Amino acid sequence: MRILGIDPGLITTGYGVVDIKAGGVKILEAGTIEPNTKEAFEVRLLKIHQHITTILQAHQPDIVVLEKLYAHYNHPATATVLGHVRGVICLCTAQQKVELVEQSVKRIRKALIGNGNATKVQCQEFVKRLLNIKSPSFKLDASDALALALGQAHMMRYKLI
Amino acid sequence: MRILGIDPGLITTGYGVVDIKAGGVKILEAGTIEPNTKEAFEVRLLKIHQHITTILQAHQPDIVVLEKLYAHYNHPATATVLGHVRGVICLCTAQQKVELVEQSVKRIRKALIGNGNATKVQCQEFVKRLLNIKSPSFKLDASDALALALGQAHMMRYKLI
Repeated sequence: MRILGIDPGLITTGYGVVDIKAGGVKILEAGTIEPNTKEAFEVRLLKIHQHITTILQAHQPDIVVLEKLYAHYNHPATATVLGHVRGVICLCTAQQKVELVEQSVKRIRKALIGNGNATKVQCQEFVKRLLNIKSPSFKLDASDALALALGQAHMMRYKLI
Repeated sequence: MRILGIDPGLITTGYGVVDIKAGGVKILEAGTIEPNTKEAFEVRLLKIHQHITTILQAHQPDIVVLEKLYAHYNHPATATVLGHVRGVICLCTAQQKVELVEQSVKRIRKALIGNGNATKVQCQEFVKRLLNIKSPSFKLDASDALALALGQAHMMRYKLI
């Protein structure tokens, strides 16, 4: 089972692809997409579309996991802008015919470390430990995306360790 | 000058293409995109992407006009969902390298009938009269999209009549 987690953002979109097999979990690729903020909005969306399409074609994941959006309702302008980015990512999955699931942060944290109210940092530490990521410069947006992929795997009853 | 107006929506996206020449204004195509609401969200976004791309390639407009989004902040969930549709439309313009402008409803109504507080119905009647649209079954979403195109033309100082 190959899973791509995506943590969308207009400034930084994190992504992480993992392979889950009987022997454990392996990270295939993880990183961030950071379109030039001086570019027009639609050009930045184009960059995200191109990058996500490339990742989907290169790794052919079985499932894409996106974070459910409802924490931002206190900031409607942010949620709306984020909606544009999410729309483009949803489109990529439909174009490449990959199954898309959405999961709430709470469910992912509960699946990963047994506590839906765990902090972001706890979650990131868990992901880095599980995947044996030692680089101190590893981007948090990428580990958030990996958390989505790993949480989804756990919910599907794959053994991670 | 050829202008495509788009009034985005998840259920119904209206569009209208007009040609503005010295002799006046001519409607080239107008209609609505209504993806099957039983389909998955991302498949509906794909349908909108395919349809808008086809229109852009067929008519090669100089400008695409989208309605500015801020009336929906009282309904953040709606604004967020609409953001997804708008993101896909913005992407289409970047992919086809067409200039994108956003206009507020107020500015469009002010440009068209001299009153930013004119009603939606007044605006629609004006568009139908100007373009000599007589069909009673003409969709309102399509005339809203045409209003965007015509309002933009007016703001660019093209004579409509």
